[in-house]
Amino acid sequence: MDRLKQQIGFILEIDKLKGVQRRSYLIQGDRRENSAEHSWHLAMMAAVLTEHASAAVDVAKVLEMVLVHDVVEIDAGDVFCYDVAGNVGKLDREKLAAERIFNLLPPDQSAKFRALWDEFEERRTPEARFAAALDRLMPLFHNYHAKGRGWQEHGVTEDQVIARCKIIADGSPALWEIALGLIRESVAKGYLAPAAR
Amino acid sequence: MDRLKQQIGFILEIDKLKGVQRRSYLIQGDRRENSAEHSWHLAMMAAVLTEHASAAVDVAKVLEMVLVHDVVEIDAGDVFCYDVAGNVGKLDREKLAAERIFNLLPPDQSAKFRALWDEFEERRTPEARFAAALDRLMPLFHNYHAKGRGWQEHGVTEDQVIARCKIIADGSPALWEIALGLIRESVAKGYLAPAAR
Repeated sequence: MDRLKQQIGFILEIDKLKGVQRRSYLIQGDRRENSAEHSWHLAMMAAVLTEHASAAVDVAKVLEMVLVHDVVEIDAGDVFCYDVAGNVGKLDREKLAAERIFNLLPPDQSAKFRALWDEFEERRTPEARFAAALDRLMPLFHNYHAKGRGWQEHGVTEDQVIARCKIIADGSPALWEIALGLIRESVAKGYLAPAAR
Repeated sequence: MDRLKQQIGFILEIDKLKGVQRRSYLIQGDRRENSAEHSWHLAMMAAVLTEHASAAVDVAKVLEMVLVHDVVEIDAGDVFCYDVAGNVGKLDREKLAAERIFNLLPPDQSAKFRALWDEFEERRTPEARFAAALDRLMPLFHNYHAKGRGWQEHGVTEDQVIARCKIIADGSPALWEIALGLIRESVAKGYLAPAAR
């Protein structure tokens, strides 16, 4: 029963992820999204797009990985990926957060979810590379459909988006094609500023 | 490429689930939650509590089932479970929604997700019974931590909550113990009105 109480303690705590705001706006709405609903959307994306992964992946593992990948933001916050200063020390803050939050679980589960989170961060396995591809592609959908609002508010340019997104190719060449198309169309439509020359 | 475009069309469409409000308030916050973040939370709960299912379950299947179980609300809305009039015709409206939304996917995936949704609704397999147990337990956490606000706003009483939640026992006797404890404590603390005599 102590074990079950620890598990429930973790479940109650992670409700806080619903209060962590991301920089991107909804695809079908007019507010910024939070990291919990983003994680759901990413898991649905993983379930639907599995066949496009560059190597065979264990779907259950990818699902658990994307479900858990942002939980550390409860303590560490969602740092905008193009915010250079904000990203200094990010991994250390997230590791501290992982330490606290996953340790609410019984030791075996704490180790399991921590290992999944580490694997996602390290991008060395097919599952992690595919999960990372989804996590980089999703904001392109959001920014494209919000006519670049999330990019423009922060002065993001095409070269920055390409530099951030090119790892999509490692997880899924087909999705990298989609990403490149969205980036080019966003520049053509004036949603995304071209690279400074 | 047509196949991938259909898949992406589905992914863009289901963003709307983030705009469907539920009756329950956040556990760790002061607003009502939406069905997308609820689905994420339920999937995390499934990943953490699998060992408490009354029969062996395929975790990947439970995850996909809870991720997709509320997607029909995009068209059919979230009907409050204790709203008798609102529930008239609910299943028909949801079936129409399932028809439209899952059919955005390529036929094989449309059939797969529709079957998962039907399975969840029918509660005949171990996975569906466990998923239903989680879906009934979660609102108890929300209502308990919001001091009964969601129940009181709609005049819900103990007997109604027990009638709705007792199927938790089919999916997980251990979680039904937790549910009963929360219901009793909610009545004792005045969060939940006792059954009318």
